[in-house]
Amino acid sequence: MAQNKKTAITPTRVEDYPEWYQQVVKASDMAENSPVRGCMVIKPWGYALWEQMVAVLDGMFKETGVKNAYFPLFIPLSFLEKEAEHVEGFAKECAVVTHHRLEAGPNGGLVPAGPLTEPLIVRPTSETIIGDSFSKWVTSYRDLPLLINQWANVVRWEMRTRTFLRTSEFLWQEGHTAHASETEALERTRMMLEIYADFVENWLAMPVIRGVKTPSERFPGAVETFCIEAMMQDRKALQAGTSHFLGQNFAKASDIRFQGPDGQDTHAWTTSWGASTRMIGGMIMTHGDDDGVMMPPKVAPAHVVLLPVFRKDADSEAILAYTQDTAARLRQETYTGRKLSVEIDSRDLAGRNWEWIKKGVPIRLEMGPRDMAEDAVFMFRRDTGERRAVKRADLGVVIKETLDAIQKNMYDQALAFQKAHTRNVDDKKDFYAWFTAKNPEKPEIHGGFAMAHWCQDAGCEAEIKQDLSVTIRCIPLNGEEEEGRCIFCGGKSPRRVVFAKAY
Amino acid sequence: MAQNKKTAITPTRVEDYPEWYQQVVKASDMAENSPVRGCMVIKPWGYALWEQMVAVLDGMFKETGVKNAYFPLFIPLSFLEKEAEHVEGFAKECAVVTHHRLEAGPNGGLVPAGPLTEPLIVRPTSETIIGDSFSKWVTSYRDLPLLINQWANVVRWEMRTRTFLRTSEFLWQEGHTAHASETEALERTRMMLEIYADFVENWLAMPVIRGVKTPSERFPGAVETFCIEAMMQDRKALQAGTSHFLGQNFAKASDIRFQGPDGQDTHAWTTSWGASTRMIGGMIMTHGDDDGVMMPPKVAPAHVVLLPVFRKDADSEAILAYTQDTAARLRQETYTGRKLSVEIDSRDLAGRNWEWIKKGVPIRLEMGPRDMAEDAVFMFRRDTGERRAVKRADLGVVIKETLDAIQKNMYDQALAFQKAHTRNVDDKKDFYAWFTAKNPEKPEIHGGFAMAHWCQDAGCEAEIKQDLSVTIRCIPLNGEEEEGRCIFCGGKSPRRVVFAKAY
Repeated sequence: MAQNKKTAITPTRVEDYPEWYQQVVKASDMAENSPVRGCMVIKPWGYALWEQMVAVLDGMFKETGVKNAYFPLFIPLSFLEKEAEHVEGFAKECAVVTHHRLEAGPNGGLVPAGPLTEPLIVRPTSETIIGDSFSKWVTSYRDLPLLINQWANVVRWEMRTRTFLRTSEFLWQEGHTAHASETEALERTRMMLEIYADFVENWLAMPVIRGVKTPSERFPGAVETFCIEAMMQDRKALQAGTSHFLGQNFAKASDIRFQGPDGQDTHAWTTSWGASTRMIGGMIMTHGDDDGVMMPPKVAPAHVVLLPVFRKDADSEAILAYTQDTAARLRQETYTGRKLSVEIDSRDLAGRNWEWIKKGVPIRLEMGPRDMAEDAVFMFRRDTGERRAVKRADLGVVIKETLDAIQKNMYDQALAFQKAHTRNVDDKKDFYAWFTAKNPEKPEIHGGFAMAHWCQDAGCEAEIKQDLSVTIRCIPLNGEEEEGRCIFCGGKSPRRVVFAKAY
Repeated sequence: MAQNKKTAITPTRVEDYPEWYQQVVKASDMAENSPVRGCMVIKPWGYALWEQMVAVLDGMFKETGVKNAYFPLFIPLSFLEKEAEHVEGFAKECAVVTHHRLEAGPNGGLVPAGPLTEPLIVRPTSETIIGDSFSKWVTSYRDLPLLINQWANVVRWEMRTRTFLRTSEFLWQEGHTAHASETEALERTRMMLEIYADFVENWLAMPVIRGVKTPSERFPGAVETFCIEAMMQDRKALQAGTSHFLGQNFAKASDIRFQGPDGQDTHAWTTSWGASTRMIGGMIMTHGDDDGVMMPPKVAPAHVVLLPVFRKDADSEAILAYTQDTAARLRQETYTGRKLSVEIDSRDLAGRNWEWIKKGVPIRLEMGPRDMAEDAVFMFRRDTGERRAVKRADLGVVIKETLDAIQKNMYDQALAFQKAHTRNVDDKKDFYAWFTAKNPEKPEIHGGFAMAHWCQDAGCEAEIKQDLSVTIRCIPLNGEEEEGRCIFCGGKSPRRVVFAKAY
């Protein structure tokens, strides 16, 4: 292995994975910390990625009959208190609005004034405020199902934050549905999980495990929480989307009732499901390498960047015209339903090439006098580094084939990585070693996903968490029944679950 | 006039315009009040309209090189205080976050805990927090112009609120740009005003007057505020978008400096410009009639609704299949760059028709056994009430022609209304009469736009506001120089300005 190969990012993943992540984000120009504690600024390159993600997910939701709406940013404290587990789950991380104006203080500066009679919570999630609307919108079974989604910002006050992964404010969507039967609500919960899995696997190129959370890891107030879990390159798990079956808990808290065909009055069954800008962090940690971010072609803010190469003895104007003509041709093409997004960078700048590598653009095309003479361009793949000349006559087809190839390769690489670091563990000593033994090549990285048996006792789960900071990420949905012995206590277990360290 | 014609909305515009507005919004199912003081819930039909508006405006911005980004919801108090006029302008309407968690209070319930060392303001606008980022992003003239836009929610605590028109929380976009010269910044300010005017006139079908605000009506901290003003059916003005030239005020407050080609260090010139969900209120008040909302076809959430008519003696299945086939054909068509949006309402319900009238869908198509026998449908226009049979072979073409005709008719009607209620006023007594005399037919409505002379003295402006609640909406950009006498004091005036009551 070429240990001394020069990389764009310092430190490398092997050297210091958490710091590598921060440096990759910075080098990609996707986001930065803001002067407001725990809040990030999403810069144009990061936001353009988010816009692509939103467009695709939003389309998927609408295909299933979901409609978008918008609800208040503020939740009266009394609303949050309606569901006991719910408020307990969020009380420790709430931004609280207590005043509605500013006035001159005793020492000259402005101070909060106009105290509110009831504090308002900046929404950490919107079950209770949306539940209030639902209670008015639903009276008969004919009003059901009610399928609503909201794209919004939410705030959960975090003490230790990391760009995209854990921030006090983040962007997300939260779907909320109400149904006339438990079965239908459960079907919707599973349907939305499948949409998340489809999106994350087929658009973000991140293989995931679909599963259900243990009671201790459930959303506060939910009856059942379904999730998708992905493996990062430090072998930790990242939850990339959750879908909650809320039973009648929130319907009772918000009084969402409907009259059935038989005239009987019943509380509705509700669901909620969300995915956030956190997915961006997961995407970066799944695909990034020591040269920076790698954008999956299907959501990349730009598919291709064109880099005219100017030579002292050549006609710069002609090269520029050739570049613009190439861009115009490419912009006629569509890829996965949108026009090819083509950037031109005609700055005569050392390091220009590396900027686009660090930003993760899937394909770079250089074109200088010699390429022009041959009516060709020189193509570079971000994922494999492969480079070759392509005739312009073939370019549209080659670009699209190459984007497909990159998308597939990224998924395959990530899946191979996940498989390589997932294993059945049946012995407690092995289990502890798996999560504590250092990998000599990557000293800070250990373990991966341990498929192990668990007796379904929250005590065993808690002790493992205490000892190793390892949690049950999920009980896989496609896991086979298999009798076994709990990895911690040796008690009977009906199936294996996924243990891992997690973000 | 058929005074007793039955209308869908009670009261009518003539009877009680403000109440008519509230009832129209309610009947359209676009939005409703929330339990949070002054905050609205935007329901799916209203949000779908907003999505169309966002898509079009966003595309217009991007065409001019603007890129989207996202900045924190919270603004530290010290940031807001950086620009003196700015903080003064917003201090009276700020939602202030003072705590970051909840804990059990002395009386059992939860109370705010974890006081913040510095209060955070929920953004009323983002000049100061975006300025902070700009100060880091800009170092050289090569970094300019910086052209950024944000789609976001903002909060301005309002005491008297009205859905869409004035709410404590609303949705908007705010553009922020920085430039290396005053000329360029002014050009951008005017360019964005022209984009708003283009959008509001050509998409929302609302004629506007482009103008500049008087000093007393400027955005707090701006050097110059440009605006577009539209006339509502009660003849009041509504400001539908503003574009501010900020000079170097905010650049100095946030320290946005660049090194020029000559090595000299200079503060940048900045602009900001915004349009909000308020435009929806303006659209409703411009086009709505006594039967409810009227959606301009180019932004309508649905262009067409299909209404199968079931008869006792006919085959319902066949009618339904016929309807679905018609919908499938129409969905192949595109109108103004998006697929025709087609709803089917197959409920067998009295009042079904009226629901769609109140929602303002431009075209309704009824189809029963007789239409089916003739391979035709029966078409109703929302704006004129015109109805006629259309052969299905012609339907695609006829629908698109009719949508164009409706769009044009709506604009023409609004322009005729604006012209009919705008007049030159040169006599002070006439001016006062114009804004106080009741119209016998519409007793609560008076005046309109008075084009009158003004001596440029803020005192005269203030006295008129005091006497009549009439303000100078703008100094028209295309107004001709014309010497005259101030309508209030008789002092010299170089041109006419627009006086009106306003939302």
